[in-house]
Amino acid sequence: MNLPGQLNVRPRTLLGPGPCNVHPRVLTAMATPLVGHLDPQFLEFMNETQEMLRQVLGTTNRVTLPISATGMAGMECCLMNLLEPGDKIVVCCAGYFGQRLIEVAGRTGAAVTELHKPWGQVFDLESIRQALQSVRPNVLAIVHAETSTGAWQPLDGIGRLCHEFGALLLVDAVTSLGCVPVKVDDWQIDAIYSCSQKGMGCPPGLSPISFSDRALEALNRRRTKVQSWYLDISLVQKYWDSERFYHHTAPITMIYALREGLRLVLEEGLEARWARHMRNHRALKAGLAALGLNYIATEGQQLPQLNAVRIPDGIDDLTVRKLLLSEFDIEIGGGLGEFKGKAWRVGLMGHNSKPASVLLLLGALEQCLLRAGAKVASGAAVAGANRAYAQL
Amino acid sequence: MNLPGQLNVRPRTLLGPGPCNVHPRVLTAMATPLVGHLDPQFLEFMNETQEMLRQVLGTTNRVTLPISATGMAGMECCLMNLLEPGDKIVVCCAGYFGQRLIEVAGRTGAAVTELHKPWGQVFDLESIRQALQSVRPNVLAIVHAETSTGAWQPLDGIGRLCHEFGALLLVDAVTSLGCVPVKVDDWQIDAIYSCSQKGMGCPPGLSPISFSDRALEALNRRRTKVQSWYLDISLVQKYWDSERFYHHTAPITMIYALREGLRLVLEEGLEARWARHMRNHRALKAGLAALGLNYIATEGQQLPQLNAVRIPDGIDDLTVRKLLLSEFDIEIGGGLGEFKGKAWRVGLMGHNSKPASVLLLLGALEQCLLRAGAKVASGAAVAGANRAYAQL
Repeated sequence: MNLPGQLNVRPRTLLGPGPCNVHPRVLTAMATPLVGHLDPQFLEFMNETQEMLRQVLGTTNRVTLPISATGMAGMECCLMNLLEPGDKIVVCCAGYFGQRLIEVAGRTGAAVTELHKPWGQVFDLESIRQALQSVRPNVLAIVHAETSTGAWQPLDGIGRLCHEFGALLLVDAVTSLGCVPVKVDDWQIDAIYSCSQKGMGCPPGLSPISFSDRALEALNRRRTKVQSWYLDISLVQKYWDSERFYHHTAPITMIYALREGLRLVLEEGLEARWARHMRNHRALKAGLAALGLNYIATEGQQLPQLNAVRIPDGIDDLTVRKLLLSEFDIEIGGGLGEFKGKAWRVGLMGHNSKPASVLLLLGALEQCLLRAGAKVASGAAVAGANRAYAQL
Repeated sequence: MNLPGQLNVRPRTLLGPGPCNVHPRVLTAMATPLVGHLDPQFLEFMNETQEMLRQVLGTTNRVTLPISATGMAGMECCLMNLLEPGDKIVVCCAGYFGQRLIEVAGRTGAAVTELHKPWGQVFDLESIRQALQSVRPNVLAIVHAETSTGAWQPLDGIGRLCHEFGALLLVDAVTSLGCVPVKVDDWQIDAIYSCSQKGMGCPPGLSPISFSDRALEALNRRRTKVQSWYLDISLVQKYWDSERFYHHTAPITMIYALREGLRLVLEEGLEARWARHMRNHRALKAGLAALGLNYIATEGQQLPQLNAVRIPDGIDDLTVRKLLLSEFDIEIGGGLGEFKGKAWRVGLMGHNSKPASVLLLLGALEQCLLRAGAKVASGAAVAGANRAYAQL
């Protein structure tokens, strides 16, 4: 076999659903020499990472740490720890990742009740109350930012409602953390998971999670062992706690990255970061409107970091996305599930949520649409965004 | 909260059970800008990584890929995919990681038969034949390189024996791959897992695995879904295969690292790499003998990459290890399980298996032992190693 050559990457502007481009400071942190996973230096980095994660999540939860795998392992970790055979869960599903919660929850042996809304919509408190009342589940799970539709689920009030009925609230914050407010304690969230490669602005590979005291009490009442040894929070926590009991070898370089990503988030400040994401979203939206592209999610429920729009009739999904990639080195996302071939998903996440991304994307998308045969007023997209910026 | 400062690492020489120091080329690869997990460039890196992994593992198995989590997730992946309630497994246990196989296997719902040997010993074919004959298990699991004792389990012949009794052979190669021969096809291994941070010379975070056709047939006969969605090989494989069906977001930077680590392994050549590990081990062993340190594993069954020796009577474990770390920035491993406080584990893995590591460690260890009150002939350790090198 001829060996493959040295890593040689053509740089891209990553404006899809994640990963986004990583800040140079995070890349530099990843080139830092390794220390051992029980080195006193590393234990201090772990403490600092946890403390910053708590701030970003708006929580004082002791069990707040990054799981040593990607966001989907965080989902599995929360479901596997909170559920066992004989338990009941209600999953709110209005998109691809709601569907995935159903699939993963089903493997725990718990009884899954599916609460469906059309893809792109969000749930109101009343429909959740009815489900809690009729099912009386151990857990209710809901997606904060549905990556497949760009819909922004309001969470305030759901935790209180769950607790009224003795249920735990489990939240998927994979696409929300670091982009829009996430307030674990204020919203009475009992278990939450996210990822490293979106709002945290790091490479994929870690899944921040947090468990409330109420969730920990439920863990203590389990009749069976957690199905996964790797994701068993009672064991993982013993390594992150002051006991430092060896469980598995932590992905040291990824922790270096997350620590630097968290420093960047907190240096900017959460409020400023959320406002930045909203500002660039508004400008992008004005530009997309000028191109005749409409959002899937309802007005007022659109995520600033994930702009999912319908592909106009007569325009081929892959033609446009391949042109964007080959001519401009821009990646955007295609549709998932029932939106496959019918939607584009434009991410403005973390470091990438900036005017330069917005104007570049709009200019390039306009050219690609024109070449794909769309009728688009030339220059309208960038002009629309620039008018919006002038007012923001 | 005051934000923690910029990442500031005091470099260490990592001579414990892993991670080892990472080659600068691997660190540089990790600082490469991200591309998307479905970018044509990245798909090509995936293909190259798989092809090199097959070579390193000595296999043509189609299902050969890195699981997106650390080595222990690889263990869990193999056990969860091959076992379901109603199945039977025999686990060969002569150390901490055999014990862990028992613990993780137990969570699959399969019936676990434990085959024990005193820690530090290895299993012979006859005792394995007896267990296969009496239990008739679906799977027999064994550790190739027991990281807690430094014992080197011969594997040749076990696969044939397992297949004679209709069982699959599952091998833990966490500490062996890249250091000593691993020959998946020749040895008729059906499922194997390793890690990235030892013989592969990369940071922790990935677990290379491989499944034989016989193992895949067993997967197809499953009556229940795999407990873990994240580790379900039938789903993971669809992303690594030409289908490229989205499962989870691959840890892109870690794949960059593994690709570069594999290039380094194959540039050196497997035979040369194994010989290098053996040569430095022999020199280290001569030096350790001069310090009066005896191996836990039997002569002829000692791993070159993981040298586990008994701590002399009257010498305090932590005193010596803390001196090594604080005065010389050298990390070695302590004992695990029944060897806690009673053993040191010196790793010479990947990039770190070199004369400079051996001489540095021996010189420093001699000083620390003297300061801890041991009676050691001054200079004897380095002299012993140098005499050995002269003859190797």
